[in-house]
Amino acid sequence: MVKRAVIQLVTPGTVVQEKPGQAKDSNFLTAVYAQDGQFGFAYTDLATGEIFVSKLGAISSVINELLSLRTKEVVIPTDLSAAFKTELNKLDILVSTQADAPATSEVSFVSQGIQTPVELAVLKTLVLYLVSTQKRALAHLQVAVEYEPSQFLRMDHQVKEALELSRSLRTGERHGTLLWLLDRTKTAMGGRLLKQWLDRPLLDRTKIEQRQARVGAFSAHFFERSTLQDALTKVYDLERLAGRVAFGSVNGRDLLQLKGSLAQVPLIKDILQQMQDPTLTDFQNQLDEVPEVYDLIDRAIQADPPISVTEGGIIQDNYNQTLDDYRNAMNNSKQWIAQLESQERQVTGIHNLRIGFNKVFGYYIEVTKGNVKQVPAGRYERKQTLTNAERYITPELKEKERLILEAQEKSTALEYDLFTEIREQIKKQIQRLQHLAAVISEIDVLQGFSVVAEQQHYVKPTFTSHKKGVHIENGRHPVVEKVLGAQQYIANGVTMDQHTDILLITGPNMSGKSTYMRQMALTVIMAQLGSFVPADKCELPIFDQIFTRIGAADDLISGKSTFMVEMIEANNALAHASSQSLILFDELGRGTATYDGMALAQAIIEYIHEHIHAKTLFSTHYHELTGLSDTLVKLANVHVGATEENGKLIFMHKVLPGPADKSYGIHVAQLAGLPHSLLQRADHILGDLEAQGAKTVPQQAE
Amino acid sequence: MVKRAVIQLVTPGTVVQEKPGQAKDSNFLTAVYAQDGQFGFAYTDLATGEIFVSKLGAISSVINELLSLRTKEVVIPTDLSAAFKTELNKLDILVSTQADAPATSEVSFVSQGIQTPVELAVLKTLVLYLVSTQKRALAHLQVAVEYEPSQFLRMDHQVKEALELSRSLRTGERHGTLLWLLDRTKTAMGGRLLKQWLDRPLLDRTKIEQRQARVGAFSAHFFERSTLQDALTKVYDLERLAGRVAFGSVNGRDLLQLKGSLAQVPLIKDILQQMQDPTLTDFQNQLDEVPEVYDLIDRAIQADPPISVTEGGIIQDNYNQTLDDYRNAMNNSKQWIAQLESQERQVTGIHNLRIGFNKVFGYYIEVTKGNVKQVPAGRYERKQTLTNAERYITPELKEKERLILEAQEKSTALEYDLFTEIREQIKKQIQRLQHLAAVISEIDVLQGFSVVAEQQHYVKPTFTSHKKGVHIENGRHPVVEKVLGAQQYIANGVTMDQHTDILLITGPNMSGKSTYMRQMALTVIMAQLGSFVPADKCELPIFDQIFTRIGAADDLISGKSTFMVEMIEANNALAHASSQSLILFDELGRGTATYDGMALAQAIIEYIHEHIHAKTLFSTHYHELTGLSDTLVKLANVHVGATEENGKLIFMHKVLPGPADKSYGIHVAQLAGLPHSLLQRADHILGDLEAQGAKTVPQQAE
Repeated sequence: MVKRAVIQLVTPGTVVQEKPGQAKDSNFLTAVYAQDGQFGFAYTDLATGEIFVSKLGAISSVINELLSLRTKEVVIPTDLSAAFKTELNKLDILVSTQADAPATSEVSFVSQGIQTPVELAVLKTLVLYLVSTQKRALAHLQVAVEYEPSQFLRMDHQVKEALELSRSLRTGERHGTLLWLLDRTKTAMGGRLLKQWLDRPLLDRTKIEQRQARVGAFSAHFFERSTLQDALTKVYDLERLAGRVAFGSVNGRDLLQLKGSLAQVPLIKDILQQMQDPTLTDFQNQLDEVPEVYDLIDRAIQADPPISVTEGGIIQDNYNQTLDDYRNAMNNSKQWIAQLESQERQVTGIHNLRIGFNKVFGYYIEVTKGNVKQVPAGRYERKQTLTNAERYITPELKEKERLILEAQEKSTALEYDLFTEIREQIKKQIQRLQHLAAVISEIDVLQGFSVVAEQQHYVKPTFTSHKKGVHIENGRHPVVEKVLGAQQYIANGVTMDQHTDILLITGPNMSGKSTYMRQMALTVIMAQLGSFVPADKCELPIFDQIFTRIGAADDLISGKSTFMVEMIEANNALAHASSQSLILFDELGRGTATYDGMALAQAIIEYIHEHIHAKTLFSTHYHELTGLSDTLVKLANVHVGATEENGKLIFMHKVLPGPADKSYGIHVAQLAGLPHSLLQRADHILGDLEAQGAKTVPQQAE
Repeated sequence: MVKRAVIQLVTPGTVVQEKPGQAKDSNFLTAVYAQDGQFGFAYTDLATGEIFVSKLGAISSVINELLSLRTKEVVIPTDLSAAFKTELNKLDILVSTQADAPATSEVSFVSQGIQTPVELAVLKTLVLYLVSTQKRALAHLQVAVEYEPSQFLRMDHQVKEALELSRSLRTGERHGTLLWLLDRTKTAMGGRLLKQWLDRPLLDRTKIEQRQARVGAFSAHFFERSTLQDALTKVYDLERLAGRVAFGSVNGRDLLQLKGSLAQVPLIKDILQQMQDPTLTDFQNQLDEVPEVYDLIDRAIQADPPISVTEGGIIQDNYNQTLDDYRNAMNNSKQWIAQLESQERQVTGIHNLRIGFNKVFGYYIEVTKGNVKQVPAGRYERKQTLTNAERYITPELKEKERLILEAQEKSTALEYDLFTEIREQIKKQIQRLQHLAAVISEIDVLQGFSVVAEQQHYVKPTFTSHKKGVHIENGRHPVVEKVLGAQQYIANGVTMDQHTDILLITGPNMSGKSTYMRQMALTVIMAQLGSFVPADKCELPIFDQIFTRIGAADDLISGKSTFMVEMIEANNALAHASSQSLILFDELGRGTATYDGMALAQAIIEYIHEHIHAKTLFSTHYHELTGLSDTLVKLANVHVGATEENGKLIFMHKVLPGPADKSYGIHVAQLAGLPHSLLQRADHILGDLEAQGAKTVPQQAE
């Protein structure tokens, strides 16, 4: 009979998601190795075989990477220090251990070109774990790609959460995130690549501008792009198909998907050719039809194979002579049996005599009770009596039956062998398939960027030096604009030239201060992804890091000490930001009493102004901080306005220069109808506070 | 045949919920009538027939009542002003209209004793609407009970929501609310009464103390209470059963439930008797067994009646002679038929001859194919031929069949008539049943209070004058304590004597300021319900109104102008609070810039101090307001402490006298590791701010 699949251990990090809806999500298995205060960090998506490896300097960076990847399982060597294990155990991630052992061929293959010892060690840990749990071929594992978090725009896990890059704070879903907005990919591979990009926007201007140029090329060729999208839609998940080939879990239908996908490659090349854009030439050159694989599948696999690979019906006729012989034998015998029926009807005169088949008795001749008398004595051998019929056999019938069953069994076994052979042949081309997948993914993501840019009227950002600063005209928060509709959305510029490092934003609650700050950060991220951005004009420096402290509603509910969290995040920014970073502080200091919160806010602003020089957006309720613009030369005030209409407050969501109206609160109280004497008194107190505030607060740091 | 039920219109306000899980919820149909600037307001729960009516002075009161009742439908006269209709339409409540028409007998009955024209008018509107939609007997409608919101502790809809009296802010569910905590009722009626009480705590000290005394009595008799609970568990929903009697929708099983419930009454009286507590005598006297109803059901209704009332099998033997005659006739004939079977078996010798019945052919004699030959010729008349059997009849058999069917039809019709008669007789006692239900409900709620008091170690509050003030020792937030467990919970006293009207509460975020304020309000409400309260000792004045401004997380999300909402709620309190009211202001002024928020907060505190004199808990981040205690003689500072342990902040949740540590924020910043120079600078700025604040803020109002 047929061989059984080998046993494997399925762990949270090695589950290969097969549901179509999840194909755009990756499931990462991670590994950590510690040596001399350094950490080797590696991760793989077993479904696609991609492996990334890095060297990290601190536990906090390791934890940050683990959280950003949303890994469900981390593998560590058995001898890793207990303290580090304790840290990992806090994360609600399964910690698995892998004992050291001699390197396998997979380890050597994956580690090609890696030099750093701690990276080599972590790759070994990761791959040995895969080998020991999967217990099957891992031919699709790709050569590990080294990365350094510092090669990319750095944002820690909290920043990605606060900016809702791929997960909504409110719902935990993808809907309403930047990923949701940007994802116009047509393939699952493209969707996964976009998510990778979003986790690591670029720092290299040349690379960014290459992506931009390609987005521009797709934008300039509307009809070609549309044809391209049709072709992409027909490309299946090549990475995962390659993974299934390697695992030996591929079936006939998968191979047809592979063939169908490869059939699109010449079309895609052709479309790119038609666009005649030099930035796309490189794609054309790299698109590999892998004709060996296409032809093999085309010749070997039937048009509608079954899901099972062990029951025959997969291999085409004319592919293998022996198989054809078996099939002929079967067909001849079946024909003989079919003829037997009409022949016996004539001989016996029983017009409803029929030949049937069941699994227990095989082929038989059936005559109903009423006609039994007409059966010539001795012609058949009685086999089985039913209520209404008798069943007979003959030696010839049984002989043919034997021929058929024998041929069937042999052909099924042969088909399985042939299928395995074909799979092994394809396995040799896995790296070409993976490379093809990578190229198509990138084309897919970039054509998606061009679609979003067109539909949302985005503009290509240009990059300037940090000295020249930020110039965004009519910028929009991309997700809010998409949700509200362009008509509803009030655009706002951001200007931070060589004279401005810090924008101090005042204005009432709910007027849009947070949205304005998030808009800035998302624009930067989109720009460094190579995407166009929601603005009429956009000039930006390339930022190295983004830091945020943006209050989230869930902090209030979780019952944590919000202020402690605020201060920890603020300190993180102050400790790590450079003059090329972007800092967003939303209402910093609000979680404590007024004066000490205000004092801290002022001291932090001064510290950034004096020591860090990062571009900073700082929103505040401490209206009195607006006086700082007198002493801090690189601080500018802006405010979000509100206006009164028929006794109701209308938020204009428009950011304007200068500080906000300082007696806004008393004005609202008046609209709400508070007693006149009370309002007069409040006005008086405010006057006093303002008078003294003016005297002291803007003092410069000593 | 049998009469069909009359047609009725089912509307959102007149749906009678029949699911067991919903029996503790009421569905109120409301009506509003406007005349000369006054509003008649009435509502009924059609399932129980209770009607309440009131005269309200302002649209806002009407809307507040509508929202508090969670009504789904409000009936207004056709000529009600368009402006008012517009207001109502905003509420997401179905607005139905009722044209004026001559008063029916139901209107007169319900309106007994009501004098106020606008109340009479609204009752007429409500009842006419019921008559015209229900098109059926409304005998269970009770005489309308007048109420004045001012007879009760007034809390508007927002206050009830903010304090989570019956609906959790987070989940919208009952779990985690005061109602959830207090509801240890054993009957659905008790559950509904508790909800009514919770909506309207008492002002009348005598009534409150009567409830307290009864709770005390139940607490003092543990074993009797346990027996009482068993009895209550067996009491069905008398109010709804009475409603079904009136509607004519009652069935035999309902009547058995009614009987079973009435059977508990002597037991309950007996238990109360055993307790020998004078405060319970009144209950004993009012418990009416309604023996007429019990006896009638006991005599008339069979032990296991069907759900349908039109198919017989409901009425017992010996209840009605004619019915007994029919039944005898049926039984005799059935017996004759049963005998016929054995007789015919003997005569024919066919041992499997049997007599059967089906709806199409009636009674028949059946003989299987094999035995047909044994049937003596001409003995039976052939009626029907089956594959394997023949069916016969005889004239005698058909005669008996006719007798049986005739008797059956007559007895079914008679049973229905008898059942209707019984129902009408019970209907005459509906008011006694309703009164009984009311007494049992009250017993049930009060025994429930005693259970909670005992399990949660509550104490009986005593009432003092407003001059003497509030003295709570080791008070707890009842719901938080229940959820956390008594071991976890830190108790806190509240002291506001003749020298203190206002407690100004400072302390870090999340330290428990809101919980402390809610605890105070819930203790007041529980005390005025007649319940014991979570404290070791409790002296309270009786409050006339509660006002709150407690920030809810959902305000932040809904995107409203929080500050406008704050000011409207503050103004509402200032406009309506008296010296006997309780005001809770949580972080008032936070929604705007610092100085104007602070100025408003101070002006509001001063206004309450000078003009209102209500007991007020005011929590704030404006640490500088603590200086007000120098000038406002009736203001006292308290704070919630936090302490440091191993570089982590531990919230003690303990309320202590005096203002909070003013440099808490800087202290946290230090723990979070902010640069030393920055902290020094913040300390310096804080010193300056404090120095000037001290000079001006505590100035008294001019």
